Amino acid sequence: MIVPNWLHQRAFLTPHRIALYEGEKEITFSELHELAKKKAKQLLRLGVKKGDIVAVHMKNSAKMVEIIHALQYVGAIALLQNIRLTREELIWQLRDSQASFVICDHAQSLQPMDNDIQLIEWAELETVPEQEGMLQTTYNLDDVATIMYTSGTTGKPKGVMQTYGNHWWSAIGSALNLGLHMDDCWLAAVPFFHVSGFSILMRSVIYGMSVYILPQFDAKKANEIILQQKATIMSVVSTMLQQMLRELNEPYPSTFRCMLLGGGPAPRALLDECARRHIPVYQTYGMTETASQVVTLPPEYLSKRGSAGKPLFPVQIRIEKDGKEAKANEAGEIVVKGPNVMKGYLYREEETKKVLKDGWFYTGDIGYVDEDGFLYVLDRRSDLIISGGENVYPAEVESVLLEHKAVKEAGVIGIDDEKWGQVPCAFVVVHEDEVVTEEELQQFCEQKLAKYKVPKQFYFVNNLPRNASNKLLRRELLSLLTGEGRSDER
Amino acid sequence: MIVPNWLHQRAFLTPHRIALYEGEKEITFSELHELAKKKAKQLLRLGVKKGDIVAVHMKNSAKMVEIIHALQYVGAIALLQNIRLTREELIWQLRDSQASFVICDHAQSLQPMDNDIQLIEWAELETVPEQEGMLQTTYNLDDVATIMYTSGTTGKPKGVMQTYGNHWWSAIGSALNLGLHMDDCWLAAVPFFHVSGFSILMRSVIYGMSVYILPQFDAKKANEIILQQKATIMSVVSTMLQQMLRELNEPYPSTFRCMLLGGGPAPRALLDECARRHIPVYQTYGMTETASQVVTLPPEYLSKRGSAGKPLFPVQIRIEKDGKEAKANEAGEIVVKGPNVMKGYLYREEETKKVLKDGWFYTGDIGYVDEDGFLYVLDRRSDLIISGGENVYPAEVESVLLEHKAVKEAGVIGIDDEKWGQVPCAFVVVHEDEVVTEEELQQFCEQKLAKYKVPKQFYFVNNLPRNASNKLLRRELLSLLTGEGRSDER
Repeated sequence: MIVPNWLHQRAFLTPHRIALYEGEKEITFSELHELAKKKAKQLLRLGVKKGDIVAVHMKNSAKMVEIIHALQYVGAIALLQNIRLTREELIWQLRDSQASFVICDHAQSLQPMDNDIQLIEWAELETVPEQEGMLQTTYNLDDVATIMYTSGTTGKPKGVMQTYGNHWWSAIGSALNLGLHMDDCWLAAVPFFHVSGFSILMRSVIYGMSVYILPQFDAKKANEIILQQKATIMSVVSTMLQQMLRELNEPYPSTFRCMLLGGGPAPRALLDECARRHIPVYQTYGMTETASQVVTLPPEYLSKRGSAGKPLFPVQIRIEKDGKEAKANEAGEIVVKGPNVMKGYLYREEETKKVLKDGWFYTGDIGYVDEDGFLYVLDRRSDLIISGGENVYPAEVESVLLEHKAVKEAGVIGIDDEKWGQVPCAFVVVHEDEVVTEEELQQFCEQKLAKYKVPKQFYFVNNLPRNASNKLLRRELLSLLTGEGRSDER
Repeated sequence: MIVPNWLHQRAFLTPHRIALYEGEKEITFSELHELAKKKAKQLLRLGVKKGDIVAVHMKNSAKMVEIIHALQYVGAIALLQNIRLTREELIWQLRDSQASFVICDHAQSLQPMDNDIQLIEWAELETVPEQEGMLQTTYNLDDVATIMYTSGTTGKPKGVMQTYGNHWWSAIGSALNLGLHMDDCWLAAVPFFHVSGFSILMRSVIYGMSVYILPQFDAKKANEIILQQKATIMSVVSTMLQQMLRELNEPYPSTFRCMLLGGGPAPRALLDECARRHIPVYQTYGMTETASQVVTLPPEYLSKRGSAGKPLFPVQIRIEKDGKEAKANEAGEIVVKGPNVMKGYLYREEETKKVLKDGWFYTGDIGYVDEDGFLYVLDRRSDLIISGGENVYPAEVESVLLEHKAVKEAGVIGIDDEKWGQVPCAFVVVHEDEVVTEEELQQFCEQKLAKYKVPKQFYFVNNLPRNASNKLLRRELLSLLTGEGRSDER
């Protein structure tokens, strides 16, 4: 299916509408189009071609939005990189994806770079002459637009291939759920390198909607923008919302119509407080593989609080238990079908086949659907830890710990944390003839892992709980701490 | 691409929202789903199967909406028939489409029916026992959902095949243009057997939006509904809007946000009056082959009044002249591309190929695009006459006239009419040895043509203007009347 390039069509249809607010700056769709077109021609000059994988290593900014659209004009695939990753993690992604370029705010932190990967610093790109060439004024919805890495069960990060169609249907599904007002403005304080932030940019050009960019989250500033009626919708994770409530002394104006709350289960107390303060919270469940939200709970369903809600219009969900569809209220694996489900994992056909069957995506998450069709998420897949909205995969942290010569076995779980929701915590079995301290392990991890992945606590134990086939039982680890049995509540 | 059946998904997601208002009656999506499901099972009992072509010959009503959704549950293709057609015209369509059933309000007017076509009267269907069977809970967007007949250049009506995808993308394109509010209600006073009315029903289930059904247009009643804030959007043709303005003594409330004006060029005076009275008119251009609107002009573009506007987001248009793209302000054929363009003409591969090339649909209409990208429609295709929102194809009327033994040649054009916008008018050359009166021809036409197609005036002439290759020059006919040269204004 061929559709017009979204920014191109937007600049044609509604040239004078504001696309981006950034500080005092306003950029219309027509201006954004011109800026992105110029950048595209500069990228052409540097040798970027249609189909190339180009990493983007930038902080939220209008400049980053320009680059994203410039890559779409060139027809290159954007690999969105989490700027909090260590150099080692980043380079692993670049090699794995066979990216040929990295566009970044500052090159220094990424040097030295592999010979076959070209580093392009924003400031440098600004000075490159333009080269005329074919810009992509249409998309094939089946083409891959973006790659974002995620880990999953194995601990090895995998590149999720999201197509233009995935982003399109995600945006449409969201509009059919939240509605679409001419004066909407979406406050973006979640990173554009995550699908939660990236999807705001796609909605912007598809809807013709303004985005208010915050380079980094600031609770006071975010409240200010909403109170001044400059934004009608905002995407948050629990820890952001908690900070905003702490700072808030007056009600939000009625123009503010949606606080889209994602990134893991929300504490009940937080939802209660929002209801009390008339903040229109839409809880949502989604993942990189589904190009953002797939299930959302509108604020009017007070009695269903704690549920993730019902699927977006183009999406179907079902719960599978022992290969069969589960009954109402029976827990099983959450399985999702819809046009926003990813094309697959980059260069990983086998792993793709494991999770994508007949159009259904096996999330690995556990949950149930009640008799009214509302989804309740019980457990994120593979003991996923969500810390301040960032995904931490235990297996990934464990495999780093096992690289340390003193570590014989390692198990990582999330423990509750008031500020971040959860933080990772490690259980370590040391080799008989070795000695190691908590500080040493912490430093070791910091060299290899983004800060939010580094365990905040280390427990040294004699052995780890395992089942008969020697599989680590991570959920039993928690009971080592609390002295209680397996904890099923969440 | 597979998506959930729209009504099925709606009844699951927002069961308690009102789907239909009809008089004092309110029907929720959940109730509509139950009603349609029941009808589907009754149709199964009568032998209706997936893939069957089933004609619907009904007046706007909740019953008709039930039938439309019931057919989608069965997976049958609905042939929407204009109830103003003569029995002869209807039967021609049934034979041409190879329809196997006709569902109607009253069977009497359609009898006697061909042996291989089964007439199902609503009242009779109500009493049929249900039969269990597979209902279609998903759609393939490539499957044909509906057939609507239209004539075009040749005068022979052709069945336009509209897919589920056509209706889906049309609804989405419209939402991206007009926005989507939780409290929207669309006032439907245009026939559901036309795409202008049918598309309202599809938007209803896709958006989760209420529809207020008027069984037939009534200017006073329509104003009343809007003034009582019961509708926020309405679809009209010029003659309806004119009547409503004549009856209107107070301003519409601000909750009324869109008067979607289609069905042919709008008189300038009407647009001026609407602007003066702050009625938010969205002019629109579309046709059966594009599953409703493709180009729309929002009310804020005062300076572009008279233009049809810009394309919907998923749509591209271009003007072609001598096989090449025309320059700005240069007139040529209007060519349209987008996922709402029909699959083709039923059983007419050759005719389909003539108008569908490489995804581009050749409308046959003449127009230009100005330097800002706004479309101006100069001439509807093949001298199409639009009378009160109904399409009248001159060639079709001419071919009926030629069936009369006294008629040697016939030419039909539209002449301006205060009430209907245009009405058909015939020029007739009589055989040398024959005699005929205006009344005789009128009666002859009334037997074979819907009333709105019957010429309101007959002129008897010695010969008709033709070009060198003997092609009838319909536009020259007008100058026979006015004594002027070719008239290019409209």
